[in-house]
Amino acid sequence: MGLIGGGPGSFIGPVHRLAAEMDHEIELVAGAFSSSAEKSRAAGESYRIDPARAYPDIATMIAQEAARDDGLDFVAITTPNHMHLPAAKAALEAGLPVICDKPATTTLAQAHELAAIVEASGKPFALTYTYSGYPLVREARSRVAAGALGTIRKVVVEYPQGWLAKADSGKQAEWRGDPSRSGIGGCVADIGVHAFHLAEFVTGLRVTQILADLGTVVPGRLVDDDCQILLRFQNGARGALLASQISVGERNGLTLRIYGEKAALRWRQEEPNALWLFHGDGRSELVQAGDPGLGADAQRASRTPGGHPEGYLEAFANLYRDFAAVLRGEDGALIPGIADGLRGMALIETAVHASARGAGWVDFTVQGDKT
Amino acid sequence: MGLIGGGPGSFIGPVHRLAAEMDHEIELVAGAFSSSAEKSRAAGESYRIDPARAYPDIATMIAQEAARDDGLDFVAITTPNHMHLPAAKAALEAGLPVICDKPATTTLAQAHELAAIVEASGKPFALTYTYSGYPLVREARSRVAAGALGTIRKVVVEYPQGWLAKADSGKQAEWRGDPSRSGIGGCVADIGVHAFHLAEFVTGLRVTQILADLGTVVPGRLVDDDCQILLRFQNGARGALLASQISVGERNGLTLRIYGEKAALRWRQEEPNALWLFHGDGRSELVQAGDPGLGADAQRASRTPGGHPEGYLEAFANLYRDFAAVLRGEDGALIPGIADGLRGMALIETAVHASARGAGWVDFTVQGDKT
Amino acid sequence: MGLIGGGPGSFIGPVHRLAAEMDHEIELVAGAFSSSAEKSRAAGESYRIDPARAYPDIATMIAQEAARDDGLDFVAITTPNHMHLPAAKAALEAGLPVICDKPATTTLAQAHELAAIVEASGKPFALTYTYSGYPLVREARSRVAAGALGTIRKVVVEYPQGWLAKADSGKQAEWRGDPSRSGIGGCVADIGVHAFHLAEFVTGLRVTQILADLGTVVPGRLVDDDCQILLRFQNGARGALLASQISVGERNGLTLRIYGEKAALRWRQEEPNALWLFHGDGRSELVQAGDPGLGADAQRASRTPGGHPEGYLEAFANLYRDFAAVLRGEDGALIPGIADGLRGMALIETAVHASARGAGWVDFTVQGDKT
Amino acid sequence: MGLIGGGPGSFIGPVHRLAAEMDHEIELVAGAFSSSAEKSRAAGESYRIDPARAYPDIATMIAQEAARDDGLDFVAITTPNHMHLPAAKAALEAGLPVICDKPATTTLAQAHELAAIVEASGKPFALTYTYSGYPLVREARSRVAAGALGTIRKVVVEYPQGWLAKADSGKQAEWRGDPSRSGIGGCVADIGVHAFHLAEFVTGLRVTQILADLGTVVPGRLVDDDCQILLRFQNGARGALLASQISVGERNGLTLRIYGEKAALRWRQEEPNALWLFHGDGRSELVQAGDPGLGADAQRASRTPGGHPEGYLEAFANLYRDFAAVLRGEDGALIPGIADGLRGMALIETAVHASARGAGWVDFTVQGDKT
Repeated sequence: MGLIGGGPGSFIGPVHRLAAEMDHEIELVAGAFSSSAEKSRAAGESYRIDPARAYPDIATMIAQEAARDDGLDFVAITTPNHMHLPAAKAALEAGLPVICDKPATTTLAQAHELAAIVEASGKPFALTYTYSGYPLVREARSRVAAGALGTIRKVVVEYPQGWLAKADSGKQAEWRGDPSRSGIGGCVADIGVHAFHLAEFVTGLRVTQILADLGTVVPGRLVDDDCQILLRFQNGARGALLASQISVGERNGLTLRIYGEKAALRWRQEEPNALWLFHGDGRSELVQAGDPGLGADAQRASRTPGGHPEGYLEAFANLYRDFAAVLRGEDGALIPGIADGLRGMALIETAVHASARGAGWVDFTVQGDKT
Repeated sequence: MGLIGGGPGSFIGPVHRLAAEMDHEIELVAGAFSSSAEKSRAAGESYRIDPARAYPDIATMIAQEAARDDGLDFVAITTPNHMHLPAAKAALEAGLPVICDKPATTTLAQAHELAAIVEASGKPFALTYTYSGYPLVREARSRVAAGALGTIRKVVVEYPQGWLAKADSGKQAEWRGDPSRSGIGGCVADIGVHAFHLAEFVTGLRVTQILADLGTVVPGRLVDDDCQILLRFQNGARGALLASQISVGERNGLTLRIYGEKAALRWRQEEPNALWLFHGDGRSELVQAGDPGLGADAQRASRTPGGHPEGYLEAFANLYRDFAAVLRGEDGALIPGIADGLRGMALIETAVHASARGAGWVDFTVQGDKT
Repeated sequence: MGLIGGGPGSFIGPVHRLAAEMDHEIELVAGAFSSSAEKSRAAGESYRIDPARAYPDIATMIAQEAARDDGLDFVAITTPNHMHLPAAKAALEAGLPVICDKPATTTLAQAHELAAIVEASGKPFALTYTYSGYPLVREARSRVAAGALGTIRKVVVEYPQGWLAKADSGKQAEWRGDPSRSGIGGCVADIGVHAFHLAEFVTGLRVTQILADLGTVVPGRLVDDDCQILLRFQNGARGALLASQISVGERNGLTLRIYGEKAALRWRQEEPNALWLFHGDGRSELVQAGDPGLGADAQRASRTPGGHPEGYLEAFANLYRDFAAVLRGEDGALIPGIADGLRGMALIETAVHASARGAGWVDFTVQGDKT
Repeated sequence: MGLIGGGPGSFIGPVHRLAAEMDHEIELVAGAFSSSAEKSRAAGESYRIDPARAYPDIATMIAQEAARDDGLDFVAITTPNHMHLPAAKAALEAGLPVICDKPATTTLAQAHELAAIVEASGKPFALTYTYSGYPLVREARSRVAAGALGTIRKVVVEYPQGWLAKADSGKQAEWRGDPSRSGIGGCVADIGVHAFHLAEFVTGLRVTQILADLGTVVPGRLVDDDCQILLRFQNGARGALLASQISVGERNGLTLRIYGEKAALRWRQEEPNALWLFHGDGRSELVQAGDPGLGADAQRASRTPGGHPEGYLEAFANLYRDFAAVLRGEDGALIPGIADGLRGMALIETAVHASARGAGWVDFTVQGDKT
């Protein structure tokens, strides 16, 4: 694996590396870690890879790796959003599969361009919607698919964070608040799409209409930092998506509640090894990671027995494990792909524009969406 | 105290009685418990009051009690909504103070009529927005008022229930689903107004705009059973109110979260003796009932030391304790009154109509609102 | 009902009154509230009873009430422990049933004396082991009795409090720390017996051996303030009872865990409306107050629907409701009686003496124990 | 790193590998994974190491690795307990540092023998008391050391599990129930020592007396499966250690509560990113992983920001990270060593023997204990 991005000070770069290597199927061997050649070299040292393979730029990496017998099998992209498209394009056109941070790109048009490139390349392309990697998220998905909830009627997905409650919120905040690097979405692009993906992933339903109320709470910020989006799903189910980055005291509070005709479920990212099921007859059941009754997807996604908590890094590693399976040509991987990327970008653009013009309910369709 | 309503099978009638009498300042001595004279007599027996004071109708009760030396000091109204106005009118015009279930009436016009009657009578009129009686709700209100949260930026208030998830949900559901008795609101009138009142009560802020998305999920139901209402407060704070009665597995999940510039708080009705404070510096603090640091309002509203849980009945009793203080002419009672009733009715009508016509954001003003 | 004790500054007196009257089957009409005639009169005023019935002493109350047509039906005793025996004796010998705070007396010898008096009187005698009044404690008891746990193997009952962590812990602490008023037990007598009763009540098993490790942590205190007692039950089940009053930060943390061959359960007093069941097949189930599947004992002990929390006062009121049923001659009341009182006193004496002499395991039998 | 043990079907072998490699400072390159040469070879394949370095036995591994330029830097021992001493001896005498599963050996005498070997070798020896690797356990330790709790008065450490509730509990249970492989301790050796170590690690206090009540609940089992051990610490603090493997429904419920004169703390392994602090003034504070106020030890032991849960594998990896630091000669590592191993073995032997003879309180001293 070669890493694009993840230079000095990056949070997500080392996370990708750790997650990728957790199951010893993947090894980080090369990188274009920064747009500065010097920083890329320094990052290579901190990752302890062969210094010769810490490249000054993407093009060099791709060219030189192609020339090696033991060259890259794929690249992982962890740059700010505006670099996703050129980086992915370079890799895919060189025949390298790509795994990339969400959101797919900075604009929906770019996402369509990327989709076309992916299709033309015939290579795997995956997006790290991390939270879909948790064992109990997968269990929730299986149970919904098996009809445990009956017809779904209502979905509430929340993603409160508080780290952008102040105007000056540190380095990680910087590029996210700059539309030229992050795109037109702020909170909706950074975490709203995670919540959106989670809701669609677990319910197996598509959102078909949205009503968006995006706001910028902290003065001077150029993008939204608080989103309230009402949802309508393809089967008529009602829903709400509340994401915020100015919710003081919240850490990473992604929470999903799904209410069906027969039963309901609840899952919280900060307590990821617990899944609540509320049955229509009044019984409340707590399903825990490692429980004997878990389905195959959840079991495959677990590394420890019950009571030995797994967390964010293991969930992330499950995406890489899936990706490795895809590279081997195996079926059954649950990792999100370019279609999810298109939907996420459509959410960002639709929500930002609809909210700006006070549009009320708008249809939510994604051109060329086939899945 | 005389009770209007609360006949056989009533849940809320006995609750009023228990709450009213908890502190031995009030005694139930008479009632017009049902529109059926026979049922009223039977109810009188079950309440063990003097059979002569279990009246066949409201007018008789008011007339006969007025003739007694030990006649009623006030009446409590616990009928279905459509009877609130005539019952309150009869009492107030006879010079009797009134404490009444929410919502105030079945229509906003009726509520204005009632407000005029209250004003003309010069008598106390109170509404049992029960949840404002919890000690830690009052503590939350005090802390917000004292500036502990700084400027409020975002409010999320939720009230999920599941008991109306089926078409046939029992007796309590019957009148609530009949617009001629409950008014045009279903979920919004039954519990939405509780959530709305709680948010305004604790924040001390008025809602000035709403965007309503009300739905009827269970086929055949005549009123809404699921509401999503986006809020804008007078200071520009953003908010969401999610109330539902089809959320399988939820019992009485009223929850309030308020995010300010400096800190945030969270309170859940089902765990009422806990109040979370999240400070901007990262500290998470759990305030519990009975804690030495509680303010005067919370202390006054508590009957047991810390660790000896109080609940719904004690919260209800706090409203009656307040009402008794009002009757004695004391200051400082926090019990809601007709102004809150007007705001609740305005919410119901505005939300139902705006949602029906897909209106998007609408201004929320209540004519004659002076407080 | 007449109250003995509960004078100015008393916590438990007003609680008894409120609990007794909650269901309108019982009314406080008289009292000998204090050993000071003046204080008793003042207390009578605060309870708003007829001043003529606020008596200067117990004997006067019993004599004068006996002379009234509407005299007392029973007395409730809420004095410090050393007054339990003389007060109960006076009442029972005058033909009045008694409901009394735990522990029964100050010594086991006194408890035997009291048991003889109860037997001779033929009158009901009840002890307010409050926690046995909670609906879900009764549900737990029913489920264990019905075999839901299989053979019980292990019981852990804890009762940590922190209010006596300092040498000077206020008025309530004063008599409890004075052996002449409280007896030889401190923590073990104040809360240890609650934990002990709860364990026996729910399991339906008797403790037959104990190993006691009592300590006095706060310098200068004359009685124990921390107890660790290992238990052996009649069926060989193993157990531990940990009670403490120096556990800073704990409020009233009574917690019971019972592990059987087939399943286990957990209940916490501070979250009394939740009962956890852990099934042998790995399922974790949360039973909540108001759930449709609850048994008759729990249902009878509830006043509100699910999601409307009940608490300590309602649990206490359930004991009075039981006591009223006993007075009416009905079957099925679960209220503890003198046999439980004897067992509690035996625990105190056995534990204190065994711990003092470092005795290791000692047999735990109560002479004349018939139930 | 070379692995001894961890053959087919092992849970802990792959965990060691994953933990060791998480930070890319250590790589598994060789192993004697099983006493069967064939199984060792198969395990080597599953670990994807060079087949030439999957050795048939320990001696061969040590000899052949010593002959390589890129030979082992240390070995990790994950065999059943009875193999710890010979494996460690072989490695240490060949000059290889050792990191080993707990408990150190099968008998205290062996542990002393091992201690002598360690001392003679001058090489690092570490024990994987995993739970001491959690960031918030280290935070707890720092706060106690800094005096946040004041003088410690009481410690309750519990470790309930349910996986051995039946006679036939699977492969992992097999060797643990066989004294010839596990030693004389069952539950006390498997998890009791974890609880014991955690209590001493966080308090910084030594246990100086114990009173042990060990039992065998499941018929036919040859070792204890439930332990209740009362503790006395060097400063006179009182304590209890409750460990059980027959507690149906419990997964891995290690929990530590420490009560001091000024404050208390609580930590639960199944919710490892939360640390409760209860202050003497009534404030309850929840400290969470990633909080800005954490001390250096906790920060160093964290890999993700707040709200991104870490778990068991990361805690385990922290021990390896410490071990790597020790190998580099750095100070400050918190990893347990042979002294902790001696104390653990002393606990096992003292508890088993004292319980068997009903000894009551016994002194707990470990010969040669210097730290």
